[in-house]
Amino acid sequence: MSYKLRSYFRSSCSWRVRISLAYKGLSYETIPVHLLKDGGQQHGEPHRHANPMRELPVLMVGDEPLAQSMAILEYLEEVHPSPSLLPQDHLGRARVRQMAEVINSGIQPIQNLRVMQKLQKDFSLEKADAMKWSADWIRFGFDALEVLVAKHSGKYCFGNEPSIADACLIPQLFNARRFSVDLEVYPNLTRVESALNAIEAFQASHPSQQPDAE
Amino acid sequence: MSYKLRSYFRSSCSWRVRISLAYKGLSYETIPVHLLKDGGQQHGEPHRHANPMRELPVLMVGDEPLAQSMAILEYLEEVHPSPSLLPQDHLGRARVRQMAEVINSGIQPIQNLRVMQKLQKDFSLEKADAMKWSADWIRFGFDALEVLVAKHSGKYCFGNEPSIADACLIPQLFNARRFSVDLEVYPNLTRVESALNAIEAFQASHPSQQPDAE
Repeated sequence: MSYKLRSYFRSSCSWRVRISLAYKGLSYETIPVHLLKDGGQQHGEPHRHANPMRELPVLMVGDEPLAQSMAILEYLEEVHPSPSLLPQDHLGRARVRQMAEVINSGIQPIQNLRVMQKLQKDFSLEKADAMKWSADWIRFGFDALEVLVAKHSGKYCFGNEPSIADACLIPQLFNARRFSVDLEVYPNLTRVESALNAIEAFQASHPSQQPDAE
Repeated sequence: MSYKLRSYFRSSCSWRVRISLAYKGLSYETIPVHLLKDGGQQHGEPHRHANPMRELPVLMVGDEPLAQSMAILEYLEEVHPSPSLLPQDHLGRARVRQMAEVINSGIQPIQNLRVMQKLQKDFSLEKADAMKWSADWIRFGFDALEVLVAKHSGKYCFGNEPSIADACLIPQLFNARRFSVDLEVYPNLTRVESALNAIEAFQASHPSQQPDAE
């Protein structure tokens, strides 16, 4: 099966999927979709045809457009199970998904570009207000994630193997720095980040390494 | 394994898990956590001990607290695979998860109580402004979901068997009505809803049927 990834170098959800693709050694073609240019290329055809939610990423599985990063990560786990980004035991897998969901549903959706744009437009707020809003939600989620990672981590978020939780953590930490969140109060998250940054697949997935990097 | 569910009758994420438990015929004890009483019981111990995100639901697997509705739904699929709320083929499973994620990460997190409370507090907004905000995000997500369900549905969201996508759809439609979202423009979503409402497990999971219903 040939894969193409509709992606934006700085999109944190695209980054999650890039990590999985790289970790599993899967080759793919990047189709850049610029979230700011042309009023946001995600709003135009052909992207809306691929994903009516107008979001990134979209994995093209042959001609089939598959959206939502968590659905894509689970798909890649099922089709390419080795190397795996999920533990073998049921409760371990659930813990990994729980930590990933703290970011996927608990942080990212409330702090993303689209929400910040609507905040400013609907309530006549300054960009600084929207940035504080985003930083607050990152802190709220990270406060909880720090507790979970302190409890369940080894070298990485869960035990000593990289997982889907780590694939979500790395891009969210990048966002946190963009919003000037103080990360010193999250020693477990930054410790795990350092370990992950030594892995080649995580390095290759970084925004700066993408064909559409600016 | 004995299950207990920390739940609130009107919590849409608790409702998703109640649907799965009922559909699979699993018995469990409900531990009510009131999201408004006492300033929100989710903020107090012992709930924060069970879930540092201070959210519902939490499935107690013996003594292990497992949070995040999507992680719980996947756990129940793996441990109690029959009857299943996921199709058998990889792409079908991915489609179901994609539709579930439109709600799980694309709608619910941006329209929930906590976000509405912070909007009002931080930006001195009226409750009506927060309700319009929530309604707007439900419409945005439903606009996309209607397209996906039109494409992939049979009797239910995906084909002719109930799935995790349906378990997410039903509570989100309930929320939509609370926020006065016009549902006539979503004929596929309401058609699927009618079919789901005929299933006993979906009836038993309704807020009005819960021990903490008001």
